[in-house]
Parts: sequence; structure tokens; C-alpha cells
Amino acid sequence: MTAPPHDARRGTSGAPLPDTQRGMRRRNLSRVMHAVAAHGPLSRAAVATRIGLTRAAVSTLVDELIRSGLLDELGPERPGKVGRPGSALAVSRSGPAGIGAEVGVDHLSVCAVDLRGEVRARAVRQGDNRGRAPEPVLKELIALVRQVSSEARLAGLRPAGLAVAVPGLVARGTGTVVRAPNLDWNDVDLSALLPDRLPLTVDNEANFGALAELWLGDEVPQDFLHVSAEIGIGAALVVDGRLLRGTRGFAGELGHVPVWPDGPACPCGGRGCLEQYAGEEAVLRAAGLDPGADRVGLLAERAAQADEHVRRALHGAGAALGIALTGAVNLLDPRSVVLGGALSRLAPWLLPSLEVELGRRTAGTGCDVAASGLGSDGPLLGAAHSVVRAVLDDPAGAAA
Amino acid sequence: MTAPPHDARRGTSGAPLPDTQRGMRRRNLSRVMHAVAAHGPLSRAAVATRIGLTRAAVSTLVDELIRSGLLDELGPERPGKVGRPGSALAVSRSGPAGIGAEVGVDHLSVCAVDLRGEVRARAVRQGDNRGRAPEPVLKELIALVRQVSSEARLAGLRPAGLAVAVPGLVARGTGTVVRAPNLDWNDVDLSALLPDRLPLTVDNEANFGALAELWLGDEVPQDFLHVSAEIGIGAALVVDGRLLRGTRGFAGELGHVPVWPDGPACPCGGRGCLEQYAGEEAVLRAAGLDPGADRVGLLAERAAQADEHVRRALHGAGAALGIALTGAVNLLDPRSVVLGGALSRLAPWLLPSLEVELGRRTAGTGCDVAASGLGSDGPLLGAAHSVVRAVLDDPAGAAA
Repeated sequence: MTAPPHDARRGTSGAPLPDTQRGMRRRNLSRVMHAVAAHGPLSRAAVATRIGLTRAAVSTLVDELIRSGLLDELGPERPGKVGRPGSALAVSRSGPAGIGAEVGVDHLSVCAVDLRGEVRARAVRQGDNRGRAPEPVLKELIALVRQVSSEARLAGLRPAGLAVAVPGLVARGTGTVVRAPNLDWNDVDLSALLPDRLPLTVDNEANFGALAELWLGDEVPQDFLHVSAEIGIGAALVVDGRLLRGTRGFAGELGHVPVWPDGPACPCGGRGCLEQYAGEEAVLRAAGLDPGADRVGLLAERAAQADEHVRRALHGAGAALGIALTGAVNLLDPRSVVLGGALSRLAPWLLPSLEVELGRRTAGTGCDVAASGLGSDGPLLGAAHSVVRAVLDDPAGAAA
Repeated sequence: MTAPPHDARRGTSGAPLPDTQRGMRRRNLSRVMHAVAAHGPLSRAAVATRIGLTRAAVSTLVDELIRSGLLDELGPERPGKVGRPGSALAVSRSGPAGIGAEVGVDHLSVCAVDLRGEVRARAVRQGDNRGRAPEPVLKELIALVRQVSSEARLAGLRPAGLAVAVPGLVARGTGTVVRAPNLDWNDVDLSALLPDRLPLTVDNEANFGALAELWLGDEVPQDFLHVSAEIGIGAALVVDGRLLRGTRGFAGELGHVPVWPDGPACPCGGRGCLEQYAGEEAVLRAAGLDPGADRVGLLAERAAQADEHVRRALHGAGAALGIALTGAVNLLDPRSVVLGGALSRLAPWLLPSLEVELGRRTAGTGCDVAASGLGSDGPLLGAAHSVVRAVLDDPAGAAA
């Protein structure tokens, strides 16, 4: 797990902790947790070196974290090392857990992740959710959350929060899905429809996918644009290790960046938006295929079989992506672009034309494009890990 | 002067101050300076209320700031107020000053701004700098900086730093102009060519223009996209009151967002970039006018006279801007778009077609567009104020 340098003064929410003695203590507790989570098992002395506090100060902090059940003492380290043997510390396997959930267009999934980042329980339900009312969909989701939560509790974990990824725009800092065109949900307040036993976070799937990439990806930079697709195309920008959400939480709507401004009308009201060229349905149409259950799987399979229609459709989608990304790269100057979710599976056939367009249009200032290693699990993992990160960011709050 | 809520933990550079007792003291000194700068004159008691510290703590901080010459005591407040009369505090008129400079395509300008934000000295030299080598241009700039600095010193000020705005890409955190196409400068290290008596900052003119808007504009939100133009078109994004610079410092290249991807070739290597439709030279060409000395003035004058060719050219430029901004608004979700610099003078004729394109392409998620009140002074003022802000952000460092 890559450990990005962490600004302990801000939690995942971006809200600064108070700048007082007590606030400083809470931030230092967080520094200890992050050091052990990223580099553990560690002795107290190693923690002190990593975070630049005295060993005495670290010992007091560590004792508090052990009492709260967030850190475990693994017993004396093996002999042979220099100095008095210290007891190695590790993040607890039986403390708080993050429950992540994803409302997909054709699936629901839920998982529980412990403080070490391990998935400890998981449940999935396949089925088309397009056009279904929110209530029955969320009823099924609640059943999956209960199942995963009780599995987690049996394993000695304590669910600390629920984070839900949705394929649509979420009003910043609320539980309201403003618009999820492919579910046909508008202004649905999930906080009113989900049980309030757990603290709830709701966010766009592209945002959680980008966070998963940041937290779990291999050698991921702190500045990148994460592009994902299910039926629509979304993106999320990570700057200095933090999501850029936009004023209302609507940032990252790459799917509606104009590519050919006089092109086909888009349901958004625009013309020639990227989704009209690189969205799943547009690609299936261009390839002469019927939208079925596993649309991306079908495209990947046919492309691998060298189906000329499918390859040509994906070539065109890649070129449109390259033009839209030229605008994004010019505006944002990310270190890299990561194709996540469904796009990662289609990357071999999208990348060549994408890179040609992006390369020739951003000569000298371009940036690397790569496929994510997390595949379609990104948003679900990002959701569960966001709860875990909130505990690491403010362990005193989690223990309370 | 609008006072944005200030995160005293980060300086203008974004670098957090150390999280120690001493760091806390430095941050609290900064809080006092910002409170007095934004709302002064204030009594010690009023400062204490504003920043949430005890009156005793504030008094100690204020005494230090008075000793350092950063705050002035104005004498007892007028009687009639409740309680013991306190002495009102104001930011010093004779402390450190920020020296701002602008290398424009057809001018050089320099000014000195005191801690209260007042311009206390100013010098301008008109003249075409296109194609001139950096050395003679910077020699002239140095002469202007010396003239303005000695005027400032005669007025009792102490120049604390020099910030230079340039019409090109600046490598983040360096003094190197990577590319300024309209000057024809490539990889010019200004820190090697300017005298090192003052701490130097170099940045893109759009970035300084956006900061000026943030610091000096009327009712400016903390999240906006600032679009400016001289010959090229640049933009700068402010998020939560801070500039989004991009990985290499190249963010905001709105001028090279593709508008019609099969359009005319652009010197950047791309095709159909925004500058090919809305850059000054493209508009002059579309209007059938020769590029002269005061190109924007000429366009504004002819448009005001209802010249049909000019109005049609500006209508087309506005539409292209609207298409490029559709992409930017979809990606960034800013609260508003501000047209600054030359664009603010042409706004009356650009805005109608711009708003039609942006409005119909971002139905329901669009954002306001307005012209800046600062006009073409923005970058110069932003540069000078950036030095002043650095003093307010870390007064202990400035006094040292």
C-alpha cells in the first residue's frame, strides 16, 4: 500500500482540526496511526523517528491508542537488533471497520475493510437497477450492509461508518444524489432512506475510484486525473493528494466536455459531448452491437478476437477521449491520467488513438496515461477505505 | 478590500508552518495581522474576539508586532464606548512593502504596495517587447524596480520582496519562464537575470490576476475560474481561496483547449485551439483589422461604434470561449467565471454569445460569468500583493 505524505491537520473531510493544545494532541495521535498503518509493525522508537516527536511523547500517545483498541502490541521484537528490544506496534485487526457500498447501474456491492486495509467481508447482488425507484434498490442495499456488518462483527470488528458510491452527481457535503441519469434518480436524499445507525457518506463513484487509486494504487502520484466509466464517463481530479470536488461537488464531468461542438445532441442539453463518442452506449452503437448485460465484457471479448467493427469503435472512442483529455490536461496539468473502472479493461484498444490525439495536441506539455490496476473494484474499495482513513485522521474522535 | 477567510496554517506558498509551540505562536501572530489588515483599526479586545484568543494572549502578540514595526497604535479610541477605552491598532504604513512587476507584451510596469494594500509608488514603460531578448528587457525592468523601490524607501517603506508577472508558463516554484510564446522566450531563468537583493517570485500573469481578483475584487467567491487575455488566452483556477497551479505550474492553459478539433493549426502543435478563435490576433483577423499598438483598445472602440465586422468577430470569439468554458465548468465546477485583463474591456460584446453557448451546454449545472472590475491592472497588483500577503502570513519571518 502506497503511503502518501499526510497532512494530519486536515481530516478526509478537509476540515482543519482546532489549533489548540488538545487539537495538537489529536493531530499527533493521527500521525502515530498513519505512521504505523503505512510502515508498521514499528517500535515506539521508530515511530518517534518517523514523525519527529520525542520517544517519551510517542509512548504517551501509543498508550492511549492501545487503550482505545486502535493499536496492538505484538510483543518484543526479535533479538539481534541494536539497542534494547522494543515491542513492535501494529494497527489493530479488531478495531473499527469501514463499510463501503456501491450502487451500480447493474449491481449492488458492499464490503467491510479493517484498519489494516484488508477486506474482511463482502457481498454482491447482480441485477439491472436502471429506472428502478430508489426505495426498493436501497432496501436491497440495506440488507447487504446488514449481512456484511454482522460478518464483520463476528470477526471482532466494529463498523465505524458507511460510505456509498453512486453513479451520479452528489451535492457536496450532503447525502443527496442530485442527478444519476443512468439510474434516472433525481434529488434522492440517501440519508433519509438509509438507517442512521452508522455515520453516512455519499459520493460519486469516480471520486471514490480516484481515492482508491491514491490510497491503494502502485506508485500513484499525488496529482492525477482519474477517468472512469460505467455507462457514463466521469472523472475525478486529485491535487496534492486531495480530491478537487468543485463548488457544488459536481467537478469531474468529463463526459460532457464538448468534443465536436456541432455533434449529436446529448441528453444533458449540449451537443457533441464526450459521452456521445466514448460512452458505453455510443461505442456499442458504433460497433453495431446490442446493449446486453455485460456490455464492457462483450466489447473487451470482441476486441480481443480482433472484431474489426469493435476495434474501429474503440479507436474512435479513444480519439474522442484524447481530445477531451487535451482540454483537461491543458487546464489542470496533472502528473498523469489514469483510466479506471470499465475503461481499464478496454485500455489496450483505447490507448493508441487516445495517445496520438493527446500527444500531438499537447506537444511538450503532455502527460502520461495509464490503466488502473484496481479495475472495477475501485469505487467500492475507495468508499470503505474513506471510513478507515477518517479513523486514522482523527483516532481520538473514533475512539470516543 | 474583501477579506477571504484565511488559513493561517499555510502561507501564500502553501507550505504549512511547523506544528510546534513556536509554530503556533507564528500562526497566531499571522492571525492578528490578518484580522487588523482586514477589519482594522481594531482594539486589542476586538482582535481577541475576532480570532478567539484571550485578551492577554493577544496583548503579548500585539506588543511583538508593534516592536517589529508591523502594527501601529493609533492612540485611545474616542470615548462614549462601553468599557475602558482601548488603543486602536492599525497595520503600519511604514513597514514592509511589496514590489510588483509585470513584463507585458507591449509594456513593463512596476509598483510598490504597503501592508495596508495602498499603491505608494508606480512606474510604467510602454513599448513592444515581442521578439526582444530577455536581457535588455529585464535591464529596463530593473531600472523601473530601482526607481519604484527608492520612491518607496523615501516614503518610509522597506521593500520586502519582488514578484514578477510574465505572459507565459513558469515552472512551479522556480524563477524560470519555460515558454512565453508572444515574447518568444524559452527557458529563461529570471532569478539569474534579476538582482538578488530582494526575495524573488515569478508567476504567470493569469495566476497573479486571479489572486488580485481574490484579494481585491468585490464579493469574489473562494472558488472561481479567472480568464484573462493579452495576446494569448490564459486562465487560473482558485479553489478554496488558493490557486490550483498544476504539477509543473502549467495549469490554466485555456487557450489550447480544443474547440473545433479539426480547425486551424495552432503553433502549439494542436488544431482548433481556443486561441485560434478568441485570441487577439484571430479576432483582429476575423474583423479584417491590422494588429496595431493598442489592439484591444481598437477592438473596443470599433465595437462601441457598432462596427459590424468587429462585432461579428467578437460574437464568434465569445461562442468559442463559451464552448471551451463548457469543458472547464464541467471539469472544475467553479462558483463563477471572471473575465479579466483585456477580456474585461471586451466583455459587453463577448458575453452574449458566450453565455448562450455555456448556458445551453451546461443546463442545470452552469455558472455565472462576470467581467472583472480590476481591468488590466490585475496581474501587477496581484504580484505586489503576493509579497504583502507573505508578510501577513508570517510576520515573524518578515520581521527577522
